[in-house]
Amino acid sequence: MPTGRKPILCYVTDRRALKTAPVPSDSSPRDPAPPPAHPLHDSIRRATAAGIDWIQIREKDLDARALVELVRFAVAETRGTSARVFVNDRLDVALAANAEGVHLGENSLPPEVVTEWRRSAGRMDFRIGVSCHSLESARAAERGGADYIFFGPVFATPSKAAFGAPQGIERLREICGSVKIPVLAIGGVNLENASACLAAGAVGIAAIRLFQDAAGSVDLPSRLKAI
Amino acid sequence: MPTGRKPILCYVTDRRALKTAPVPSDSSPRDPAPPPAHPLHDSIRRATAAGIDWIQIREKDLDARALVELVRFAVAETRGTSARVFVNDRLDVALAANAEGVHLGENSLPPEVVTEWRRSAGRMDFRIGVSCHSLESARAAERGGADYIFFGPVFATPSKAAFGAPQGIERLREICGSVKIPVLAIGGVNLENASACLAAGAVGIAAIRLFQDAAGSVDLPSRLKAI
Repeated sequence: MPTGRKPILCYVTDRRALKTAPVPSDSSPRDPAPPPAHPLHDSIRRATAAGIDWIQIREKDLDARALVELVRFAVAETRGTSARVFVNDRLDVALAANAEGVHLGENSLPPEVVTEWRRSAGRMDFRIGVSCHSLESARAAERGGADYIFFGPVFATPSKAAFGAPQGIERLREICGSVKIPVLAIGGVNLENASACLAAGAVGIAAIRLFQDAAGSVDLPSRLKAI
Repeated sequence: MPTGRKPILCYVTDRRALKTAPVPSDSSPRDPAPPPAHPLHDSIRRATAAGIDWIQIREKDLDARALVELVRFAVAETRGTSARVFVNDRLDVALAANAEGVHLGENSLPPEVVTEWRRSAGRMDFRIGVSCHSLESARAAERGGADYIFFGPVFATPSKAAFGAPQGIERLREICGSVKIPVLAIGGVNLENASACLAAGAVGIAAIRLFQDAAGSVDLPSRLKAI
């Protein structure tokens, strides 16, 4: 990393990408571990325990009632830790669950609308992030008062295929050099290419697969230290 | 009406139920009327001009960005009139568009969560309504601090089939006698049965089809006066 600062690591949830966890080989058939109350609870717990910085709850098909329960779980689980919880799209759910902030997509409320709400509500502590897929949208997010942006997809990834071809490291570098707010790289980021994103000027990386593993077979603490 | 008070009439939008409006027979082919910018704009204009009391924007499949534009249109269109605009489910969109209130369904944020937000934000002017389908949920909405409830479906209607069999007038009467907050009847309400709802204690009625007609062929002012 050029700055020497610790990168921000953001776990973006996707419960539909979770595989069913296999039964651990050392578990006793007569004393099975109870199944998690929610498929994401274990992933959130593991990421928090491993020292993740941000957790973005991004479960677009959940209704508000189910979503607020999940976000409240994450907020409670991260209390007393350094992890912070963001909610994708639903500002109201983020507020109701006392989350750190909201992360806005292309089809969410426009950033300037949410920052204006924040100003009038006197909630300058509440953070606002925006997903960007072009230099133009990155600059618009900055003008709109966003605190940070996600830029991507930097690399090829199935979950970001809807946002077009990979943008690549040079494009990421251009974005990082064009806005003053922090940029997190997203889209196909893994242990091998994360350092290139940081070297290009990203303050951190965001990912689903890198941080989410239903079976718990990945050594997440080591993985986080390696980035 | 037992009370002699003017009933509250609430138009609930459903743009998917709109049929394409036929070209008026007196329009010139060389000077066609421009198509409406949004399929609901004309319906909202007509209902406002006819003297509707409430308009609930209920377009569950619209994303937040499209929804806030539509709600802002409705709020602007009703300015200076007695009509008030509510937003289904999305508290954040209702706030961003400066709507009168939010209307919560079974899968929305729980009423007590939204009323707690209202209290802490000092927004006691912001109204909160709740859809109820049982005596239990009506009482829970009242305890949760709701300002009013919708109860139904009172009569058979395709759009409310998901909420079970019609509850009927006697059930509506029981609900109206069991909570102190105002109850609006919904579900298959038409010109013939509206008076029975009001006689049962409802302060008003809410409907899609009764107030929404893409072709504009219904004399909405007369219809509203007849209720």
